Amino acid sequence: MKITGKNAVAELIKTDKTVDKILVMNGLRDEQSRTLVKQAKARGYKVQFAEKAVLDKEVGSSKHQGFIAYTSDFKYTELEDLLQEISNKEDAFIVVADGIEDPHNLGSIIRVCECAGVDGLVIGKHRSAQVTDNVMRISEGSANHLKISRVVNINNALEKIKDIGLWAYALELGGSDLYKQDLKGKICLVIGGEDSGVNDLTKKKCDGVLTIPLSGKVNSLNASVALGVGVFEVVRQRRV
Amino acid sequence: MKITGKNAVAELIKTDKTVDKILVMNGLRDEQSRTLVKQAKARGYKVQFAEKAVLDKEVGSSKHQGFIAYTSDFKYTELEDLLQEISNKEDAFIVVADGIEDPHNLGSIIRVCECAGVDGLVIGKHRSAQVTDNVMRISEGSANHLKISRVVNINNALEKIKDIGLWAYALELGGSDLYKQDLKGKICLVIGGEDSGVNDLTKKKCDGVLTIPLSGKVNSLNASVALGVGVFEVVRQRRV
Repeated sequence: MKITGKNAVAELIKTDKTVDKILVMNGLRDEQSRTLVKQAKARGYKVQFAEKAVLDKEVGSSKHQGFIAYTSDFKYTELEDLLQEISNKEDAFIVVADGIEDPHNLGSIIRVCECAGVDGLVIGKHRSAQVTDNVMRISEGSANHLKISRVVNINNALEKIKDIGLWAYALELGGSDLYKQDLKGKICLVIGGEDSGVNDLTKKKCDGVLTIPLSGKVNSLNASVALGVGVFEVVRQRRV
Repeated sequence: MKITGKNAVAELIKTDKTVDKILVMNGLRDEQSRTLVKQAKARGYKVQFAEKAVLDKEVGSSKHQGFIAYTSDFKYTELEDLLQEISNKEDAFIVVADGIEDPHNLGSIIRVCECAGVDGLVIGKHRSAQVTDNVMRISEGSANHLKISRVVNINNALEKIKDIGLWAYALELGGSDLYKQDLKGKICLVIGGEDSGVNDLTKKKCDGVLTIPLSGKVNSLNASVALGVGVFEVVRQRRV
């Protein structure tokens, strides 16, 4: 896959992922770009310079900020491996995103999970945005630092997550007050698609439905904002 | 301005704004569309039907979901009027967004403020996205229900906000723990631009800098997600 943008490439080279090549636009003189090139070379990556037109063509737009890195395709984590790893963790924390179709939302959700120290994100293989080059860029490279599992059946995945002792809560309208729920311990938050929300069967599999108290007239938050509010409520309770 | 999209038009006709005309695509048979047309007519609005191509041309894309409403330009609220109105409110709550350039972020920030019952949003006249048709659509019509003031000088506005007794906090990296700050009473949260953050002078005018505790490697949240986390922490504390 192609990783574009200064921040995303900078995050990439901090990881252990295999980087085949980094293409850099000729003529970049700013401090950040020069540092980035130095770091990439220091880590032994192949750095190749080219004219802006070459990079534009590679990306199909001029939104590359002068940097394109080529890596193997995004490596999803097997759900079993993720669950194995966190099975003894007392504050295991997983997010399940069911049916997020907008790449911007998925990128932003990945950013939320990574920033909050969530152990893993589970997404569906169907009817869901996947971790593409574009999502990677929107996530500002966070996807490189987050374990993401892709499953065919969200409800089966939820069963397995509950089997290792996590409490699963759907974040959705019409439930009980998010702020009155004890969210310490092993937690799984489930969020649904932009228009559809969490589907009924999935909701039934959950131990409860939690709602952010809204007091406006429109009463709908963007999916990634809602998840941000939910995830950081878990973070807050654990810090008290 | 043009308001496009079913939800945005539905929200618009609930308000007292002047609607010059609503253009509806021929052939819409779904329940929501039919209800919307009925409501618009019941409220006495001029409803006009046209082919899809006409609506596409009006919007410059096909992202109108069959509905375009024409209203007078967005009516900003004078800061003085906003402050006058909330001067005696014990839980007055204002958000200042300084230098948000991405229309998606501004739309999402408006949605957060409206959903959380914030009294007003203050944005800059320069170096900032404005409430355009596009932002209105992204806000899902929330902008119709939120008082938004536009000011030339954010720092002067902040002085006036503090003069009526609000405590102003910048939401920014490198400050004290958001969750340890008492946020009851009259509060103003200040958020900065996507890349630049809150500028130094503005930060100095604030009573404090608050930080969302992050534990990832990338450590940056999208501006509207960060604001969502901050605004709903205020909401949470007020409900305890």
